[in-house]
Parts: sequence; C-alpha cells; structure tokens
Amino acid sequence: MELKVYVDRLSQPSRAIVIFCKVNKIDFEEVGIELLKGQHLTPEFKEINPMGKVPAIVVDGKFKLFESHAILIFLASAFPGVADHWYPADLYRRAEIHSILDWHHSNLRHGSSFTYFPFPHELCSDETNVFQLNASSAGFIQNTLLAPLFGRSLNPQAAAEAEKVLSSSLSKIEALWLKESGQFLLGSSQPSIADLCLVCEIMQLEFADETDRNRILGPHKKIQQWIEDTKSATKPHFDEVHQTLFAAKVKLQMQRK
Amino acid sequence: MELKVYVDRLSQPSRAIVIFCKVNKIDFEEVGIELLKGQHLTPEFKEINPMGKVPAIVVDGKFKLFESHAILIFLASAFPGVADHWYPADLYRRAEIHSILDWHHSNLRHGSSFTYFPFPHELCSDETNVFQLNASSAGFIQNTLLAPLFGRSLNPQAAAEAEKVLSSSLSKIEALWLKESGQFLLGSSQPSIADLCLVCEIMQLEFADETDRNRILGPHKKIQQWIEDTKSATKPHFDEVHQTLFAAKVKLQMQRK
Repeated sequence: MELKVYVDRLSQPSRAIVIFCKVNKIDFEEVGIELLKGQHLTPEFKEINPMGKVPAIVVDGKFKLFESHAILIFLASAFPGVADHWYPADLYRRAEIHSILDWHHSNLRHGSSFTYFPFPHELCSDETNVFQLNASSAGFIQNTLLAPLFGRSLNPQAAAEAEKVLSSSLSKIEALWLKESGQFLLGSSQPSIADLCLVCEIMQLEFADETDRNRILGPHKKIQQWIEDTKSATKPHFDEVHQTLFAAKVKLQMQRK
Repeated sequence: MELKVYVDRLSQPSRAIVIFCKVNKIDFEEVGIELLKGQHLTPEFKEINPMGKVPAIVVDGKFKLFESHAILIFLASAFPGVADHWYPADLYRRAEIHSILDWHHSNLRHGSSFTYFPFPHELCSDETNVFQLNASSAGFIQNTLLAPLFGRSLNPQAAAEAEKVLSSSLSKIEALWLKESGQFLLGSSQPSIADLCLVCEIMQLEFADETDRNRILGPHKKIQQWIEDTKSATKPHFDEVHQTLFAAKVKLQMQRK
C-alpha cells in the first residue's frame, strides 16, 4: 500500500498521524503543506482535500481521506502490523475510543485550540482551527499575548472563557478516563489513537507563556504524567515530530520580545 | 442484549439514534431526558453520562456510552441484524463515513446548531449544543428571532456568520458527497449512519421562520431531495420521531405571536 501523508507539523492532528505512522513502522511519504504559506489553499492541494485542511492522506494514488480521527482509524485497520491497543477490535473498547474522539471534537479542542499562533486565519487553518482567530476557539493566548502583535485589542473575557473550557476538559479527562489503574486512557497499559490525538492537542499549550501553561496544567498531575507516558511509549518519534512546534515557539518568543 | 436509550427527541443526535433503532428493529427502551426540565443535569443522569448530555445508552445494565456517532457505530456493529449499508464493513467505505461524521462535528453542526430554541443554555444542552446560546454556534435564529424573547438584543452579524457557515456546509455536502449517482452520501443507494446524522441535524432548521428556511435551503435542491430520500428510506419512523420537533415549532410560533 502506497501512502502519502499531507501534513504541517505545526498542526496537532498532523503530528498525531506522523507519530502514529512512525511508531507503527508504516511506510509513508510525508508531504509538507505549509499552512503559513497558504499551501493548503492551492488548487493542487484542494485536489487532495477539497476542504483545504491538513492532515489528509492518499492511498495508492487514488483513495483520498481527510479528518485525522478517520485517518488514524483507517491506518490502524488497514495496516496489519498495527498492534491492537491502538484501535482495539473489541467492540466495547472500540466504542469507548470513538466516544473519546467524538468528545474531543467539541470540548478539549475548543478549549485548547487557543490560537497559540500569531497568524491571521485567512492564511492558515488546519482542521482544528488552531490557527483561527475566531470567537469560538477565541483563545486564551490570542487574547492575552498575541493580539497586540496584530494590532488587535486584548480580550481578557474571551481568554478566560477559553481557559475555563480547557481546564474543565482536562478535569474531565482525569476524572473519567485516567481514573483507572494503567498509564493511558480507559485504564489501558498501552496507548490508543485517542491518547495520541488528545496528547498532541494538549501539546499545543507549548505556545503559551510558561506562567500560563503552569497555571493551566499545574493542577492536573495525572494529565502531566499521561503526557510523559505517551511521549515515552512513542519515543523517539514524539519528540522528534514536535521539534517543529518547539522551534516555532522559540521564534514566537523572540517576536514577542 | 438489553438496551436503554436516554434521549430528548428535541435534540437532533437523539432523534438519529431513536430512528436508527426503530428502522433496524433493535429492541430498546427509550428513557426520556427532558432537557428543558434540566433532567440531564441530575445526579441520576450523570451516573449514566457524566457529561450531562443526551443521547447516551446503557447496554445490559452496565456498559455506558455517550456521543451519538460512537453510539450509532456501536449499535451498527453489535446488532447483527443491521444491514451493511448503515456502517459498511469495507474499510475504505467505512473510512469515508468516519470522515463525514468527523467533518460534521466542526462544520455543519456549528452552522446549523443555530439555537433554534428559545431557552437559556444553563438549563438545556445536548451534545450538539443546539440549545446553547453561545458565540460560536451563535445562531442565525437566536439573533434574528429569539433573542428579544429573553430580553437579549439581536445580533445580525452573528446571525449572518452562522448562516454563512451553514450555507457553505450545505454546498460542500452537495459538491463532495451528493455528486455521484445514487440517492445518498457517497453515491450510495441506501443510507448510512452519516446520512441519518446529517439529515437530522438539518431538520433542526424546522425551527426557523419559513422565509429564512427557504432562503437557506432553497438553493440546495440536492439537499432537499436527500432529506426526502432519507425520510422515505426510514419511514414511518423518521416523521414519527420528528413529531416532537414539529410540536415544539408550533409552540414556539405561538409564543412569538
């Protein structure tokens, strides 16, 4: 099976897919689609994903698929080498993973997609809208740090709202899915695609100021441990794939100075 | 398998599940959770779904599941009588259905979850936030019709934004998924769970003024036909399950007068 993966490593769902492929030794070609250069909006890329968003994949030159959860489920199902814990065959287990992934869409994502990135949304968006500066994903960071860089005014109320959604989401993850023994969601001893998706999402907080990040993540010891466990279970790929994010963070810090 | 289904038929994902069970002759007990009475916020219901949202199911008195897409996938997989077209076993077909369902979360839902309902969000929410009066799902109707009922001011800009998202989502459905021959999404001659979810979502437009509904749906002939085809493929259950919505609409119209 010939697999092309269209991603921007600054986007959290893109990173989840690249890490997944690497950890599972899936042979793939990574095609960089730079959101900041608007490469997702070109007619060429819209042939791949008409929604103009990353990530997307093409299988055997003809089967095209977008939406990261759908992609991960497909890869876990189509590549026989992928261990069962990533996407369990057991219907009940699988259902719980679907439930977490669906919940992710309208909860954690909305809180954490904080627009930790100083770019106008006309230019750059991924499926999480992480780059969008709209009212819904509003954004703590956008409204506490970045807005002035673009001549926009700060909106502490929107920032507080976004932080509230995120903190509540983190509490729910701890209370519901990290409560059992085991290092990963649902008490599993090995990660699933849900662990990977959610942890990559939370990693976007790297863009936040240290004080802010500590305030948000500080109270959530289980979340912190879970991030470390996910890194560890997917090493060295997790850190390697996140290098782009870390580099962008440094650049952003310099811009702010 | 003993199945309890916790729903409010005013909520579109709840309706999708009830219709699915009825069409597929799945034996189930429907437990009404009235959002308008805050029954989803009781400690008893939070034992069923700690997120305090409908729909949710309980299987054999112990397995609890929430999130409508996850529930539909589970039911289609766990009940052997469900025909393949609802959730195809073919990996590629299945992947496309997952992709549409994921897309639904952050597109159509945000546009159509127009708050076609005149109730404060503290009291009532389902997983789609259809009852939420927040800025993201903002809402055409909330901002063109309902706001004054609650002493809120109209926000034509938010209404226009919401309508834009919805219209764009409808255009995308037509251009991408209803383009092939066949009556249903992806050129299928029979509906899948994605057809059911999306059509139930669009049905929420029943709450809109006729002029508004015609303006929004008018240009989308394929969408209109698809709604009719989905109704027809699931009759008489589709209309029967939507009676609650129609009755609420009449009540709302009288309130407005």
